[in-house]
Amino acid sequence: MKGNVIVGQSGGPTAAINSSLAGVYRTAKDRGAKKVYGMRYGIQGLLEEQYIDLSEHITNELDSEILRRTPAAYLGSCRYKLPEIHEDMALYEKIFEILNRLEIEAFIYIGGNDSMDTIKKLSDYAIITGQPTRFIGCPKTIDNDLALTDHTPGFGSAAKYIGTSVKEIICDSFCLKYNKGLVTIVEIMGRNAGWLTGAAALAKGEDCEGPDLIYLPELTFDVEKFMEKIKQLLLKKSSVVVAVSEGIKLEDGRYVCELGANVDFVDAFGHKQLTGTASYLASRVASELGCKTRAIELSTLQRAASHCASRVDILEAYQVGGAAVKAADEGDSGKMVVLERRSDDPYQCGTEVKDVHKIANDEKVVPRAWVNKEGTYVTDEFVTYVKPLIQGDVAPVMVDGIPRHLNRPR
Amino acid sequence: MKGNVIVGQSGGPTAAINSSLAGVYRTAKDRGAKKVYGMRYGIQGLLEEQYIDLSEHITNELDSEILRRTPAAYLGSCRYKLPEIHEDMALYEKIFEILNRLEIEAFIYIGGNDSMDTIKKLSDYAIITGQPTRFIGCPKTIDNDLALTDHTPGFGSAAKYIGTSVKEIICDSFCLKYNKGLVTIVEIMGRNAGWLTGAAALAKGEDCEGPDLIYLPELTFDVEKFMEKIKQLLLKKSSVVVAVSEGIKLEDGRYVCELGANVDFVDAFGHKQLTGTASYLASRVASELGCKTRAIELSTLQRAASHCASRVDILEAYQVGGAAVKAADEGDSGKMVVLERRSDDPYQCGTEVKDVHKIANDEKVVPRAWVNKEGTYVTDEFVTYVKPLIQGDVAPVMVDGIPRHLNRPR
Repeated sequence: MKGNVIVGQSGGPTAAINSSLAGVYRTAKDRGAKKVYGMRYGIQGLLEEQYIDLSEHITNELDSEILRRTPAAYLGSCRYKLPEIHEDMALYEKIFEILNRLEIEAFIYIGGNDSMDTIKKLSDYAIITGQPTRFIGCPKTIDNDLALTDHTPGFGSAAKYIGTSVKEIICDSFCLKYNKGLVTIVEIMGRNAGWLTGAAALAKGEDCEGPDLIYLPELTFDVEKFMEKIKQLLLKKSSVVVAVSEGIKLEDGRYVCELGANVDFVDAFGHKQLTGTASYLASRVASELGCKTRAIELSTLQRAASHCASRVDILEAYQVGGAAVKAADEGDSGKMVVLERRSDDPYQCGTEVKDVHKIANDEKVVPRAWVNKEGTYVTDEFVTYVKPLIQGDVAPVMVDGIPRHLNRPR
Repeated sequence: MKGNVIVGQSGGPTAAINSSLAGVYRTAKDRGAKKVYGMRYGIQGLLEEQYIDLSEHITNELDSEILRRTPAAYLGSCRYKLPEIHEDMALYEKIFEILNRLEIEAFIYIGGNDSMDTIKKLSDYAIITGQPTRFIGCPKTIDNDLALTDHTPGFGSAAKYIGTSVKEIICDSFCLKYNKGLVTIVEIMGRNAGWLTGAAALAKGEDCEGPDLIYLPELTFDVEKFMEKIKQLLLKKSSVVVAVSEGIKLEDGRYVCELGANVDFVDAFGHKQLTGTASYLASRVASELGCKTRAIELSTLQRAASHCASRVDILEAYQVGGAAVKAADEGDSGKMVVLERRSDDPYQCGTEVKDVHKIANDEKVVPRAWVNKEGTYVTDEFVTYVKPLIQGDVAPVMVDGIPRHLNRPR
């Protein structure tokens, strides 16, 4: 490379997004980039001229290793959708003025659907206006909902954390006996795509029966049928564990978590509060069946748990970062790096680049065939797909008993 | 030993309680016990003659290693307080009839305050009625609230998980910028003792500023002062992270989590719902300050997270199990094994036995001197006390990407 590289992170953070950043940095340096800049808070920060020289922060190989083990977006992130080019030409001019001043040859953006939309618009603008900067997207999202790529970096580590935590919760749930049984509802992220919720099935094995029911957001949720299922299960076992997506909806389109709001929970200031999906269902079960219930939200923990990251995921995240720089260096623009699975067993997967116009704003959901007929569990095909992505560990670098992370830029 | 040993687990499960069970089993076998029985569901199960022969379940050294890495109570647990001896003599007769039939020489009970009360009553009864069976208690509780022992097995692993998770949450909280800032409230277990909540301070280090505020249940909580603190912090930083105990109370004695109920949240069936402490405070902050908030409950995860266990904790849990059998074999009864710290740095700790009459039902709380004057953070003394207990890891035995546990007895 003759010029400089700039890299940004966008959307919700993950446990693997910094491994992609480390991959971008390393490959850019290896290919001769003079400077590798990091946008603070994505394109939104760049517009305010917030960027850093990454070589001042990643000063040696150890820093790079620690960065790969640091959760969340090291550079800071944003949720910002660029306007259409014709809507605000001045904004695009401003961005390119900054890029040109920094002598940027390659612009790498690590993110999900909205980020790919940014890559698409910026590369379109560059072509229209005849500018040489190249724009490549690097997939990232725990939700695994990006089209065209077999899976997204970030998903494997979140899935591993979910499988591990749900297994530990199941273990715990069998300890104490309650007169009318115990029902535990675990709420998992993924508003429209059930990839993460389905990963609860990973808890199942020779040593654990796994969750009893799994409800994905792709299918309509029926509260009455759910209650009947629970009732039947409680006749057979003392502890029932259910994994639900935060985004499950009724037939009429309302989210289950909105039902809590119907019962007039208004806080001291008059604001209506939505209770969570799990806590709503747990309170329904407790009320109707009289059993003990627990509602557990995996919340932020599931996307930030670097201490439980998947080795395959962290390595692939690093690879796609490197592949993005390579693609730009070889002349590609307006592309996203994708992961292409060649085989499940032995697991083999490589990178390709695909046209970002085909990816942006297209949400990949769990196929209907990967959920059982009743809509209450994922199939073996689903598990076969996810299993390779959670293999191996990345030992945190422990300092004084706690994982060490790379110091955030200030 | 000439006779048999029986061991039970009681109270809330932890990540280390099965390591104590493994220690009991190993030492009992080493000392020549013919049979080592495990009570299912503690003394409550024993009363229904539910017990297993542990040698059928721990068949080799690998099983024992896996058991030490299995969270929650392997044998099942109970929350059951024995009546006073004079209140129900028949119950005691029944227990001793079972113990005598099984030729029990040593009865080991792994648990917290209530469990030590059980040891006290059973050993008193044995002395009164001149029976030879010996009763020894083995400390266990994530809450670390047992008297006379420097700390309790189970606490170190929970503290390590809390420190690690809070650090990851802080990392995550700085990624996205919100107009009026982000306030994250993390709710931690420990209704009366703040040991676990204080462990959130472990997140603090060269690479992380740690939580901004820590509120223990030992001190009165003032909502207005809290709001003012948050307001001041938001002037200086974009993300504020607060650790609160689930048991913080107002000056008038009401739990903060009860305040949610004052605002008439009644579910579809007319039952009043208590919202959690964190979600109540988060909704107050959102309403009054207009900033983005997040409420995160570490819930069951903090006591079941074997995948993040502390090596010191798992080893000490094993040791106290062994020491309990040794004490019984040497003629002790009505005693609890305690951990005695000899030095912080280098950390040195050994076991002793103490009279269970001095322990039972006495709750150890965080000393006032280990909380700052304002009551908003723990002191360095607190951290110095906890640090040695979270050192080292116990690598989970991973099978197909997920930690393997020992099969639960059926």
